[in-house]
Amino acid sequence: MTDTPAETDVAIIGAGPAGLFAAFQCAMLRLRCVLLDVLPETGGQCAALYPEKPIYDIPACPAVEGAQLIARLEEQIAPFAVPRLLGHKVESLSGQRGQFVLGTDKGASLKAKAVIIAAGAGAFGPNRPPLDGLEAFEASGAVQYYVRRKAEFENRRIVIAGGGDSALDWALALKDKAEHVYLVHRRDRFRGAPESLRQLDEAVAAGLIEKVVPYQLHGLRGQDGRLEGVEVSDLNGDVRTLEADVLLPFFGLATDLGPVARWGMDTTRATIPVTPSTCETSLPGVFAIGDVATYPGKLKLILQGFSEAAMAAHALYPIINPDQALHFEYSTTKGVPAG
Amino acid sequence: MTDTPAETDVAIIGAGPAGLFAAFQCAMLRLRCVLLDVLPETGGQCAALYPEKPIYDIPACPAVEGAQLIARLEEQIAPFAVPRLLGHKVESLSGQRGQFVLGTDKGASLKAKAVIIAAGAGAFGPNRPPLDGLEAFEASGAVQYYVRRKAEFENRRIVIAGGGDSALDWALALKDKAEHVYLVHRRDRFRGAPESLRQLDEAVAAGLIEKVVPYQLHGLRGQDGRLEGVEVSDLNGDVRTLEADVLLPFFGLATDLGPVARWGMDTTRATIPVTPSTCETSLPGVFAIGDVATYPGKLKLILQGFSEAAMAAHALYPIINPDQALHFEYSTTKGVPAG
Repeated sequence: MTDTPAETDVAIIGAGPAGLFAAFQCAMLRLRCVLLDVLPETGGQCAALYPEKPIYDIPACPAVEGAQLIARLEEQIAPFAVPRLLGHKVESLSGQRGQFVLGTDKGASLKAKAVIIAAGAGAFGPNRPPLDGLEAFEASGAVQYYVRRKAEFENRRIVIAGGGDSALDWALALKDKAEHVYLVHRRDRFRGAPESLRQLDEAVAAGLIEKVVPYQLHGLRGQDGRLEGVEVSDLNGDVRTLEADVLLPFFGLATDLGPVARWGMDTTRATIPVTPSTCETSLPGVFAIGDVATYPGKLKLILQGFSEAAMAAHALYPIINPDQALHFEYSTTKGVPAG
Repeated sequence: MTDTPAETDVAIIGAGPAGLFAAFQCAMLRLRCVLLDVLPETGGQCAALYPEKPIYDIPACPAVEGAQLIARLEEQIAPFAVPRLLGHKVESLSGQRGQFVLGTDKGASLKAKAVIIAAGAGAFGPNRPPLDGLEAFEASGAVQYYVRRKAEFENRRIVIAGGGDSALDWALALKDKAEHVYLVHRRDRFRGAPESLRQLDEAVAAGLIEKVVPYQLHGLRGQDGRLEGVEVSDLNGDVRTLEADVLLPFFGLATDLGPVARWGMDTTRATIPVTPSTCETSLPGVFAIGDVATYPGKLKLILQGFSEAAMAAHALYPIINPDQALHFEYSTTKGVPAG
């Protein structure tokens, strides 16, 4: 909607929750910024993968779905009309602190004095289970890796596979809608927030979720993309068939940093180490926040992405305003000493 | 409402925003906790001093007033029925990591395995200007240090004194309600968020706020608590009278740590140094979060208090569950590696 300028103060790469809130923090500090994202819409994973997934730990938002969270963050930055360059993948970053140049896969170029990388899990795709004939079931929607519309699962027989938060939380979220929910995991124990584990025990006791453990996926039954059953095998290789219409495998995301790994800053396989409390990377003037950023003790929570956005915006302020001390401390009322 | 137990996992001292969110984080980790506060209600400064002050930088809450923010945080922890000990000042803390004992001024005692201090600015009161006859005007409400109800200022002539965020933000918040707003500061420059400074310039240009700088408070005119004018003097001592019904001095809070300073951890005058990313104080098992906690690069934002609450709750988890690794990473859907 807003024309994208050729130069700005801060280029924010990634328009998920952390990137959107970084735009707000920059705007509050009167820094110009541009949001860039490879996806055609803002919201990152929250909007693209989990629009209807409830999120519980955003402060003062008791239960908010991914898409709602993004809508609220958009509302918060709306007064600032932040320019966006969406559907562009940032391929190159050159220059240095105070004078960077970004180039995209569509040939666009942007000058920026500082850069915030909020790339989330980076370039991502689901880890797919190695099952014969999988593609046909993926094509028909009988095998899905993201839940976009919960209503689709009304009265369906669902097999959820995986032992982490995704499997756990979707099993809980769908248990009252589905006709039956099987939860398949190759180990006895699930990994998740202690409160979610408690809710799982409750749902299992109430017969709303059937745990199938320790089992792993073995095969798919059905034809022409119509799923009839999911075969699972135990540790001895004994196979059992679960009658089901849908399989939702949650085996995590296959991620990599993509071009970011070639921009000259220290990186690991899928993360960028930063200095805590400034979020600056090893490349001066380039900051990283949210899931892509790491430091000792890092918690991968959306909340920490927000907090890091505030830290990065304040830390980079002197790059754009070298002569001005930043006196900002509180947005809430807090006095300064009299005298 | 809930009976306060004699012992718990985590004692949270201070029931402002950071303390309330710490209770949520503990509850999500299935840790028992008790909220303690010297005030008779939860909410800390947000509820007691600024219930109607809009707060702009809470992620996904575009503009929320202090009291609303507290109501939402209360809604978020409501399912967990967290016990509270309100109207109690914690006077003593003894024992050690895993076995602390807290004692209050009302004679209550609480055993806890870990402690989170979320005491905000600590024991606080406003810095009062040294003006003759001040008490009578305070008693009548002609001089106020907190804005509890904005409606009270409808069509009043208001003098706001101070150069920080409080003075600035309240001048902006009341400019459309009041008949006239004077903003008195002893220097030319105000200290505030760059965006607030821009809005001030706009309001001054529009004639909605009259800057009176560099001036300082000199005296109060009127009698029997009825204010007629506020005298201000410039750097040469020349006095000018501003016709006004109300004076709102925002000269900050006089704070001190009170009894906390005697509990054996390192402290400064009004803050407690902590290790970043765990928020542990120098006393093992005791954590500090929010405005009372400090570390290099600390931003005094409510948001950072929330983030620190998450870090402290995760960092203290092993004290209560020494044999359990905490596998929790995300509350949002994020898979775990397959295989």
